[in-house]
Amino acid sequence: MNQRAVLLLSGGLDSATTGAIAAAQGFDLYALSVDYGQRHRFELEAAGRVAKALGARQHATVRIVGEIFGGSALTDRIEVPKDRDAGQMAQQIPVTYVPARNTVLLSLALAHAEVIGTGDIFIGVNAVDYSGYPDCRGEYIKAFETMANLATKASVEGTLRFAVHTPLIRMSKAQIILQGTELGVDYALTHTCYDPDDRGRSCGRCDACRLRLAGFAEAGLVDPLTYQPG
Amino acid sequence: MNQRAVLLLSGGLDSATTGAIAAAQGFDLYALSVDYGQRHRFELEAAGRVAKALGARQHATVRIVGEIFGGSALTDRIEVPKDRDAGQMAQQIPVTYVPARNTVLLSLALAHAEVIGTGDIFIGVNAVDYSGYPDCRGEYIKAFETMANLATKASVEGTLRFAVHTPLIRMSKAQIILQGTELGVDYALTHTCYDPDDRGRSCGRCDACRLRLAGFAEAGLVDPLTYQPG
Repeated sequence: MNQRAVLLLSGGLDSATTGAIAAAQGFDLYALSVDYGQRHRFELEAAGRVAKALGARQHATVRIVGEIFGGSALTDRIEVPKDRDAGQMAQQIPVTYVPARNTVLLSLALAHAEVIGTGDIFIGVNAVDYSGYPDCRGEYIKAFETMANLATKASVEGTLRFAVHTPLIRMSKAQIILQGTELGVDYALTHTCYDPDDRGRSCGRCDACRLRLAGFAEAGLVDPLTYQPG
Repeated sequence: MNQRAVLLLSGGLDSATTGAIAAAQGFDLYALSVDYGQRHRFELEAAGRVAKALGARQHATVRIVGEIFGGSALTDRIEVPKDRDAGQMAQQIPVTYVPARNTVLLSLALAHAEVIGTGDIFIGVNAVDYSGYPDCRGEYIKAFETMANLATKASVEGTLRFAVHTPLIRMSKAQIILQGTELGVDYALTHTCYDPDDRGRSCGRCDACRLRLAGFAEAGLVDPLTYQPG
């Protein structure tokens, strides 16, 4: 039996690649998706497809019901910024920031990991493209690990040691795509756009789409997703 | 306008007292209750009554849907231990331990706090009676604070500094009850029992009931709750 790992799986390009890296390292994947009231559900559908393609042993979905994450373009009706260049994106923490999102996700992953008996948690955070998100930085991840190892019965009793694996944290989008392609990730299954149309087609203009498209271009590859016309 | 505080409110004796202490310190209370699949709902009903009695500005309830907390007598059909004395309770982490529970609760409180614009979070953890719960200890709370201040836009930008207030952490149950009584807490509104009957009456025999009853006895007060006959 392989070592188990909890994989936080949004259904995006980064978490799909993270899952492929964890699987290549020999982990049995226990995927966990969290529905925290994202404005669109295409992301969660993508998570299901990706979990299957990764050969995950299990794919659990947790839903958070209630007004908890306010003030973000990903959960509220704030306009998603479009057509920004890399300089503009780097200027400030974007409106797509969701308050304490990764802390909530990692906390749920921690509970799940303790229940299934593993200390290994994988999350596809990246400090390069989104330098503005505080909870994508290495020092934040380290602080979460320290807290996690003080938080649980398994770690305090010494049966588990929690580690938050962030294989993408220092990679560019192009490097992520090249690595995933090498590992056989089918990026047609993933969903990235912050502002898809009602058929789930990507806008091509929000920060997430622009980073994705630039990454494919830099990698010399074609993005297999369908984009909105115009 | 007073300073706001997020109060994690279970509806139990400890969180009710914590709320009264926060209010006495001049905070406007934004109560947050989390339904994580506790076996009984009487606790959440009690939270509603207590929030009202405390004069909370808001009482939000978040529900976590999905199999995330397994392996606890509070969420699964594991038998709640009865009639244990203090020595037995202190021997090991009890089966009523819920994996990473306070981490999940505090993460949701952190998100909520950032949204409502405060850094002050109150939680009624206590390291004396339940020495077995790792996530009730001061060093855990400190590690959570450190992580929280690296996690959020507001703390990284310097507009908020997160503090997790644990006014009960070093108090005995009797001290908590005396302090709450002095502040006007009506303990008839609270719910403590791990194993109530279908009318919500407390069993009087689980660890939580025994600690509560012993606390009232030591404080020289009568517990106003209704207990199951026999």
